[in-house]
Parts: sequence; structure tokens; C-alpha cells
Amino acid sequence: MKHVDFPLLDQIEYPADLRKMQLAQLPQVCDELRSFIIESVSKNGGHFGASLGTVELAVALHYAMDTPYDQLVWDVGHQAYGHKILTGRRAVFHTNRKYDGISGFPRREESVYDTFGTGHSSTSVSAILGMAAAARQKGETSKQHIAVIGDGAMTAGQAFEALNHAGSMDFNLTIILNDNCMSIDPAVGALKEYLTQLALSGTYNKIRKNVGQTMDRLQEVGKHSKRLINHVKSGIKSMLADQANFFEALNLCYFGAVDGHDVLKLTGLLQDLKGIPGPKLLHVVTTKGKGYEPAEKEQTLWHFPGLFDKVTGTIHKPAANTPTPPKYQDVFGHTMIELASSNANIAAVTPAMLSGSSLKLMMEKMPDRTFDVGICEQHAVTFSAGMAVHGMKVYCNIYSSFMQRGYDQLIHDVVLQKLPVVFCLDRGGLVGEDGATHHGIFDIAYCRCLPGVIVSAPINEIELRNLMYTAQLPGSDQPFFIRYPRGQGATIDWQQPFEQIKIGTGRLIRDGADIAILSFGHPGNFADQACDDLQAHGIAAALFDMRFVKPIDQNLLHHVFQNYQHIITVEDGSIVGGLGSAVVEFMSRFGYYADIRILGVPDRIVEHGSVQQLYRECGYDARGIVDTVLEMLHEKVLTRKLLRYESIQYSGQL
Amino acid sequence: MKHVDFPLLDQIEYPADLRKMQLAQLPQVCDELRSFIIESVSKNGGHFGASLGTVELAVALHYAMDTPYDQLVWDVGHQAYGHKILTGRRAVFHTNRKYDGISGFPRREESVYDTFGTGHSSTSVSAILGMAAAARQKGETSKQHIAVIGDGAMTAGQAFEALNHAGSMDFNLTIILNDNCMSIDPAVGALKEYLTQLALSGTYNKIRKNVGQTMDRLQEVGKHSKRLINHVKSGIKSMLADQANFFEALNLCYFGAVDGHDVLKLTGLLQDLKGIPGPKLLHVVTTKGKGYEPAEKEQTLWHFPGLFDKVTGTIHKPAANTPTPPKYQDVFGHTMIELASSNANIAAVTPAMLSGSSLKLMMEKMPDRTFDVGICEQHAVTFSAGMAVHGMKVYCNIYSSFMQRGYDQLIHDVVLQKLPVVFCLDRGGLVGEDGATHHGIFDIAYCRCLPGVIVSAPINEIELRNLMYTAQLPGSDQPFFIRYPRGQGATIDWQQPFEQIKIGTGRLIRDGADIAILSFGHPGNFADQACDDLQAHGIAAALFDMRFVKPIDQNLLHHVFQNYQHIITVEDGSIVGGLGSAVVEFMSRFGYYADIRILGVPDRIVEHGSVQQLYRECGYDARGIVDTVLEMLHEKVLTRKLLRYESIQYSGQL
Repeated sequence: MKHVDFPLLDQIEYPADLRKMQLAQLPQVCDELRSFIIESVSKNGGHFGASLGTVELAVALHYAMDTPYDQLVWDVGHQAYGHKILTGRRAVFHTNRKYDGISGFPRREESVYDTFGTGHSSTSVSAILGMAAAARQKGETSKQHIAVIGDGAMTAGQAFEALNHAGSMDFNLTIILNDNCMSIDPAVGALKEYLTQLALSGTYNKIRKNVGQTMDRLQEVGKHSKRLINHVKSGIKSMLADQANFFEALNLCYFGAVDGHDVLKLTGLLQDLKGIPGPKLLHVVTTKGKGYEPAEKEQTLWHFPGLFDKVTGTIHKPAANTPTPPKYQDVFGHTMIELASSNANIAAVTPAMLSGSSLKLMMEKMPDRTFDVGICEQHAVTFSAGMAVHGMKVYCNIYSSFMQRGYDQLIHDVVLQKLPVVFCLDRGGLVGEDGATHHGIFDIAYCRCLPGVIVSAPINEIELRNLMYTAQLPGSDQPFFIRYPRGQGATIDWQQPFEQIKIGTGRLIRDGADIAILSFGHPGNFADQACDDLQAHGIAAALFDMRFVKPIDQNLLHHVFQNYQHIITVEDGSIVGGLGSAVVEFMSRFGYYADIRILGVPDRIVEHGSVQQLYRECGYDARGIVDTVLEMLHEKVLTRKLLRYESIQYSGQL
Repeated sequence: MKHVDFPLLDQIEYPADLRKMQLAQLPQVCDELRSFIIESVSKNGGHFGASLGTVELAVALHYAMDTPYDQLVWDVGHQAYGHKILTGRRAVFHTNRKYDGISGFPRREESVYDTFGTGHSSTSVSAILGMAAAARQKGETSKQHIAVIGDGAMTAGQAFEALNHAGSMDFNLTIILNDNCMSIDPAVGALKEYLTQLALSGTYNKIRKNVGQTMDRLQEVGKHSKRLINHVKSGIKSMLADQANFFEALNLCYFGAVDGHDVLKLTGLLQDLKGIPGPKLLHVVTTKGKGYEPAEKEQTLWHFPGLFDKVTGTIHKPAANTPTPPKYQDVFGHTMIELASSNANIAAVTPAMLSGSSLKLMMEKMPDRTFDVGICEQHAVTFSAGMAVHGMKVYCNIYSSFMQRGYDQLIHDVVLQKLPVVFCLDRGGLVGEDGATHHGIFDIAYCRCLPGVIVSAPINEIELRNLMYTAQLPGSDQPFFIRYPRGQGATIDWQQPFEQIKIGTGRLIRDGADIAILSFGHPGNFADQACDDLQAHGIAAALFDMRFVKPIDQNLLHHVFQNYQHIITVEDGSIVGGLGSAVVEFMSRFGYYADIRILGVPDRIVEHGSVQQLYRECGYDARGIVDTVLEMLHEKVLTRKLLRYESIQYSGQL
């Protein structure tokens, strides 16, 4: 990027620099910031449409507020690129989402301006309310607290919980509802329709005037008269009762709807709002992808487009000459249609991941049996359970890391009622560039402890299809998890006829006498490669695809423990509580002994990077498996017993 | 109970019998039902106030609806005693919550009238919406779907998620908002104030008339004119716009508020509502404890009073002569005050369990630093994280089984940001009479897999205090779980001076050469008793109180594995993924071998009963430990290897 392109942006390293600009310069700052984002994402990849839509908001907020003293939380942080660029990270922005680079989401360890990490949606109001409570306790009464939250994120229950709490406290709080009618896919639900009505009703000018009057009156009588403030708030309320009762019902002062791309008006309004105490909600209407025509037109596609030519708007695609394996997601989507076509009881549910899960394919063909419930994992799970009660076979597709949000519903509504819901846990394992918040690495542990469930993972697309097929056959009457990774699979010729899989059985992939490798899910492919590589070392490794971590294949494990002294387990998940734990539990239970190494995601936080880089870092790619085998077969077992018990203090009888 | 007391109720075995009654008889049915509940709960115990408040609702619903064909879900099922008594379970109602008796909550396995199990709150709208979707798919267009949900339960995010979805679907759905201004403690939040305003505004008659007009017009033009229906709905909406916009904003037809204790009006209204298609919300105002004066006056106390004299209203208390150990909850509450008194940065958060957690004690003394956020576990966790960002030391008290509802926030907002929030997991382990939905048995597994956390459990009240003290000392800068059980502790003289505990260290409770028992939390007391009992068998058992399952005390474990051939682990949690798993993981990692038995909650659903009965059933009470030791020391290890590997089908190369 040439220096000359960004004459104003070049002067802004931190928001303090921005605040030295004239108000009239802000539109140009916005133009430059927008160009910078387009330039950078077209070359380096990343989220796109959301941050284009918040350019003016980012500039106005940092101009009007005294960041980082004032606290600003960006909900679902992929809308925060403009914020990152304005807060000291423009020079490293090309490392966004790359290994050892900056994170694609706000991250406390990265910047004092990132007050709260926001990878998952709908947490911002809770977080900022907590900060406001702390400020109150510390006597920092003039500190501003702002959360920017999208209309999609507003559908999640947590946002409502936080609004309900905020409305009952008198903290100094501004919630900015960034209304672009979108999640990744178009937003859904009744609230969305309501917000659209609100936005169309054009109350802005009335509000603007009202704010002015409010300010005048506050200045007249002094800012700290609580009675006056309440009076003013009542006035605003009654004035807006016909428009804004949803938020006013929660005791939030509603302002809006305003054009979120008019940076001058936004800035003025934010400055005004600073003087109005208590919890406020500013409804800002923006366009996702604003200022880049292709992105405005096809908002879902341009949510995360990949690399593209910024001039032509052409998204780079891999050369079509060589056939490549499909994404697991597309295999899921196509297979749903196949299964649902022959089984009228099948339905599918997604919490706002129609495109990401490829359930969009089924939604197009079978809209009556496909439900996008919004960013509502809790509701998605119980809604699925409700359908299962009356004999529907529901495939509830939830990203592994988002399933965490429906964990209680999973236990309470599905597991304890033994309802045969099928959970397709997409993005199980390390997800790559989205990083720690999105890695789906705890699911094996948090599902395996639940009674009466089936926890499976396919080694490839064919097995994914067969597991999905098996889950709807008569006899599959337990909660059934099918966990598979993000992205491309391993098989080009994947659309094979369905075959039933016997639940709780693994299979021998390749035989060998020297060591047994037990894999769960797609890392079986790494292990297969490792077995090839080990042959060059004269080592014959056996590979067992466990397929199920619960119920685990006891016959297979008896065979392994009776025939192998050295065992490696490999999984794309936390090494605490996963397949490895299941295997050592088995070993202990049946009194076997073997030298076991557990490969998987180590017990620490793993950051972002390509999945290959992360597998390498964690040591369970093919090379990691080979290295582990070589180490096991060559080291003396005794060396592992060096650690000695030192001393235990006798603490007295109970 | 004498036959003569319930002349009408005696004629009602099932709702079909109720529906044979004359409308005019319903008030007497309600009186008898209320008397029966008072009679039964006074003698047998159970939840009380909530079900007294829903007597008329239960009678009206079963009279007006065609249950069990029509589907009825009672949110937080402890309000459903009337429903249970009217649906075939009056004769066994004295077994309520008892071992092998009926459940205190609706339970699918118990009755076809219990369409959905509801131990945790706020799931009912999701569940009934799922059932309505299934009915639509199956073409059952006339089936009614009703959820009864309290105003407290309405504060949970999941309820909002479900309302937002319901309002965007045209399913035939009636949501009954049972508004009694209470959770267990008084309800909190902005919505509560709004509902009170609504209820006071007295729109009932207007609504009643409107329903009548609606019905007339529907009959005139035929029920299936969608245009007409929409027209009528719009009419209702505009009429109510000044009152009911919160629900109308979510596209739910609002009716109310009505007196929930006028069974005749309720019945008529429900019959009318059946004819109005689409999603509807009926706002019903009730009094918790209705019809029993002491319960109406002190609603929190009478939520779950224990046994009482129904005539005098005197709640039976244990004789005061013998001093008994306090409840862990009270120790927690008093200790919070002690700690917060000397540390101004300490705050406490509870999601609607002020009384249950005994945080009420702190709320009374330090209301500015004590937050009851409503039934909002998700928000509670992130709100705590927000406070921690600015240096507050937050003790977030959540029942173990409810922590499941904040699991994503725990991971995303606390663990990944390494924020030093202290989670006091109350009711960890089996909880007794509340049963499967409330057992807090998965927390050890679902917390242990998270990186960088401290997972602890005290063996008694003194250790609870010391862990709480340690968690706020400088250097305790990780997420810190302190897990303790429901109810009475083990120590009368509990209020000892605080002592710091070295994080990650266990301690030897008693020494012995024959076997090592490793305990986590309060089952250490069972183990201590077992050690006494084993002495009679000439067996010297060592007992180690692990205190921390993460970080686990490696020095202690090296000592144990180097000195003992036989090891038992004991915990009040699932045997999958808990302490036992941690110990066998350690054993495998360091190449030890020992005969290990893992005692805890088995990998199946455990129902309700007294905790003593359940510990016995699960085999980790003192007797269970003794039996296990005897079995281990006398059996031949070889017999455990009898299971043989049978055959593995070679499934071909990948």
C-alpha cells in the first residue's frame, strides 16, 4: 500500500490522534479506513462485510469517547476491524488471523483498547455492565461504558438477560444496536421484523431534537438532580411509547433509528448521549458491506469472502482443473437432503448457521422441515427435543464451540429424557484462523461424561454420511453426536451408497505389530500417513479408527491391550477427558498395562493460525505421530519415572 | 386423609373425569385440590407455594383443553403438583420426591400427561414450540399447545429466544405467563417492573370483550381465512399498543392481565383462546402460596418449607438441644461477609438463588456489592467477568447443575481471558430429592478439561472457608472453582481463623499401609468412616484428601503410586472424566501400575431419593468403600481379565 493513499489515516496511530482531527475531516477518515480494510482483506483474507458496516461507528465512537479510559466492547468482534486499525494495529493488520499475528477478534492481551474478548456473539452487554458495576464500586462516575451489538446478536438469550439487568440498574451505559438485518445469513425472528418497523418509522429527527432539549434542561438545573433526570426520561419515554416500547419496557432510554453511515451526525449524537445518565439504547441502521458494491449486494457471500480482486470484485477460487475433496459441510448438507427425501420424519435445525453448516441446501428444497432459529443455541436444543418428543428425527447442527452454549439444554432436555436427537457438531477440533474462541476442543470431554449418549466422529466424508444414515435407522434411539471438522475432507469420490455402521464399533484400518495407533475422527488420516512414513523406519504400526468414543469398542480395546505394549491415541480435541482418557480408564478398569501416549490439543490455550500450523504446534499431525512413535520405541520406559515424590505435610487428623 | 374430605376430587382420576363436572363445580374442585396439596406437603414435604398459586390454572387448563391430546408443558415443574394430582397420581402423591416414588417435577416416563421434563426453568416455550412444529409436520392442525411459564423464568435468555422464534412462526400456541412477581426470591430485573405496570393497568375487561368479538367474527366468516385472522390480530394489536408492546413487538397476541385465581373466568378465556390461531400470550396474575395465609405472607420461606403443621402453620424444626453442623450454604454466606468486610474489591453474584445460596446474608449487609441478576446464568458469568476485568474479585455462586447453562460464558469469557473469577459451585454432587435434573455431577468433568483453571472441593466447612479465603489472596489469579454439596456439613466448630491453602496440594488425613483412598470433597468423610470400619477387618487404609482435582497434586500421586498397589478414588460426581480419570491419566503418563477402583456416580441416570439412599445406591458411602476395599484385597486380579477380545472385522484400507 502506498503512503499517499491514506493521508489522514497515516496521521492516526491511536484514537488520541483521531481526536486531533477537525469534525469535518471525519468523512474522509472513514473513506480511507474503508479503503484500507478493502485493500487489506482482499490480500490477506478475513471477515469483511461486518467491519465495512461499522466504519463510521468506529470513527465516531473513538472521536466522541475518551478511549481507552471510556470502555468500549464490540460484540462478535469480527465487526471490529476498523476499531483495531484505529487503535495502534494498522501496521500489523496484514498479520490478522495469521499464526503469531493479531487476532481476528478483540483480545485483551493484544491491546488496552480491546476491553473484552468477543469471538462468540451476544456477550457485550453483560461484559460492559460488569465493567460499569466495577467503575461504580471504584467511584469512577464519569466513565462511559459502550457496547456495540448487532441485531443478529440481539436474538441470543444472553443479550436479553443483560438488557433486563441493565434496565434495573442506574449505571452509565450506552448500548448501540447495530441493525443491519443480518447475522451471517439474514437475521430471523420476530424482533427483526419489529426493528425494521422501528427503523422505517423515521423517528430520528424527533429524537435528535429531544436530545437537544434534554441537554438544555440538564444544563439549566444541574446534572445531578436525579428527579430531573427521571422526569426527562419519562418525557422521552412517553414521547416514544408508540414506537419503542420493547426497549422502553426494559427501562432503557431508546434513541433512534439513526443512519449509521452519517459519521457527523453519529458523532454529535454520541457526544450528546454522554451527558444523559442511566442505561440508554441507540438504534443505528447500517448496511453490511457498506461502500463495496459486491458486498452490499451479496451480504452472506461477502461476510467472509476469502481473497479477492478489489477492483473487479472477483473472489479467488482454486483452479477447477484438479478435483478436490468437498467440505465436510457440503457433504452434510447434501446428505441431509438425501436422508430427508426418504424419511418424512426428518427435520433439521441450525442456530443462525445456514450457510456455514450448508444447511442452506436443505432450506432451499425443504423449507418446512428446516429451521433457522437465530443465534439461539439454547432454544435450538430444546426446540429439537420438543420435536423429538413427537417422533421427529431432528438433526440439530451446531458448531462444537457454540454447543457449549446449549450444554444445559443438552443434558436437561435431551440426555435425561433419552430423546434421540442427532447433534451434528460442526467445526469439532481446531478451527484455524478463528482461534481460541472458536476451537471446538472440549466437546469430547463434555459429551463423554453424559450417560446413555453416542459420541462418534467420522474419519472421512463417507463415514460422515454413514453415521448420519445410521443415526436415523430404527434402533438408533439415543442422543447421537456426530462430530466433524471445519473444511475440506479427504475423499473425492464421497457420494457412495449408504452403509449402516454398528454403533460402538471401531475398525482396523491397517495392521502392524510394533505399535497400535487409535484415532478418533479425521486425525486418522494423519495417522495413516504416519504409518506410511514409519515403514521407512522399519516400523509396522497398526491403525484403528475408533469411530465411537462412547460407547467405546471394548472388543477392539481388549485386542489392542492384549497384543500391543505401545499405544498412541490421536484426537482433534483436548487431551483431558477425551479418547485418551477413555482408553486409560479402560486399561485401568480391566487391569491392563501398556505404554500409552495421548496426542491431541494440549491442556493450554491454543491460539490462531492455519490448522496445519496448529496441528504441528500441538504435535498430532503425521510428523508428530511419527516423532512420538520413534520416541516411544527407542526410549527407556524408566526415564519416565524420574520424577520423585518429595514430601507430604501431615496436616493432622480430620 | 379421610375420603369425605374430597367429595369432588375423589371422582377425578384423570382430566376426562374433571371434564364431566359442571363449570360451576370448578371452584370447589379447586378448594379440594388446594386442601389436598396442603395436607400432603405438610406431611410429606416438597415444593409448596408455587403449586398453591397454580391450582386454578391447573383445573382450568385440564377442563378447557383436551389433555393429553392437547400438549401442556409446565415450566419449572415444581408448580405442577396440581397437574400431577389431576392426572392419575393422587394415590401415589405421598411418594412425591421419595426414593422409588414419583418425581417432584413433570417426567415423561411417569405419565403421558407430562409431555416434557422441566426441572430447570425457562425451557417450556422452546419445548412446546418443537411439539407444535412436529404437529404441523404430522398435519395435526387442531392440536393445542400450551406452555405455562412464570415471570421469574421469563427472565432467562432461553425464554426470550423461544418467544422470538414463536413470534415468527404461525404455530397454534398459547403461552401462559404465570406472573406472581417471584422466583424463589422476589423476581428482579426491568421486565418485572414492566409486568407489574401491565397488570395494574386493568385491561382485562377490554380484552375479554375483544376475544368475544374475535370469536363472533371468526365464526361469521369461517375460521380459515388467513386474511381475516391477520385483520383481527392487527385490531387486537392496535387496541393494545399502549399496553402490551413488549410481547406484541415479538408478534405475540397479548391477552391480559387476568386474575389467575378466578377459575371460571380462566376456563372461559382458555376456551375462547382455543379458537384464535397463531402464537398468543395470556398474562395471568397469581399469588404464590395462594389460599394458605402463612405462605402468602412469607413467600420465599414457603417456597419449600419442609414439614409443617397445616393448622398452625408452624414449620417443624429439629430440636435445638443438640448442636448440629451448619449448612455449607450458611458457611458460604457468612464467610462472604467476613471476606468482603476486609477486602473492598470483593463482590458476589447469584442468578436468582439469594436464599438458596445464603447470599441473602451478604445482600442484607452489602447490597452495593451483591448482585442478584435473575435466572440468568449466562449473564451472571459474563457480568462477573466484566467486573473482574477491572480488578473486582467476584464470587459467582451458581448451583453446579445450573452452571451448565453458563458453560460457554465460562469458557469464552473467563477461561480464555484468564480472568480470576471465583465460581462457588453450590450443590455439587447428588442433591437428593430434586433428582436427576438437579444433580450436579458433571462439573468435575466439564471443568477439568478447561486449561488454566483451579478445581477444588472442601472436605468440610473449615476447608470451604479456607478455599474461599485463599481464592482472594494475591497470587490467586486464575479461574477458581470451589465445589461443595447441598446441605449440612460435618463440623460444629466451623468458624476458625482463615488459613491459606497451597493451591494444588492434597493432604494426608490418616495413614495406613494396605490401601490408599483418594477422596475429593465431602466424600472424604465417608472414606474416613470407612477407614475406621476397615480397622475391624484388620485393614489399615490411608486416606488422602486431594482437595484439588486440577492442578492435581503430583507429589502426592507419585507417593501413592510408589507405595500402594491398591488405590480407590472417591468423588461425588460422574465417574467419567472426574478425579478417577485424572488419577488413571497420571498413572498412564508416568508409567505406573496399580489396581484402581473409581467410586462415584455411575455412568447412568440416577433418580431422586435422600442423598443417603443415593450414595448407597451408587456405592460410594462408607459401606460402599468398605465393600470395595474388601473385594479388592481378596479377589484375584486375574478374574478381571476374563473378558476376551472376540473378533474385529477388517473393513478394508482407507
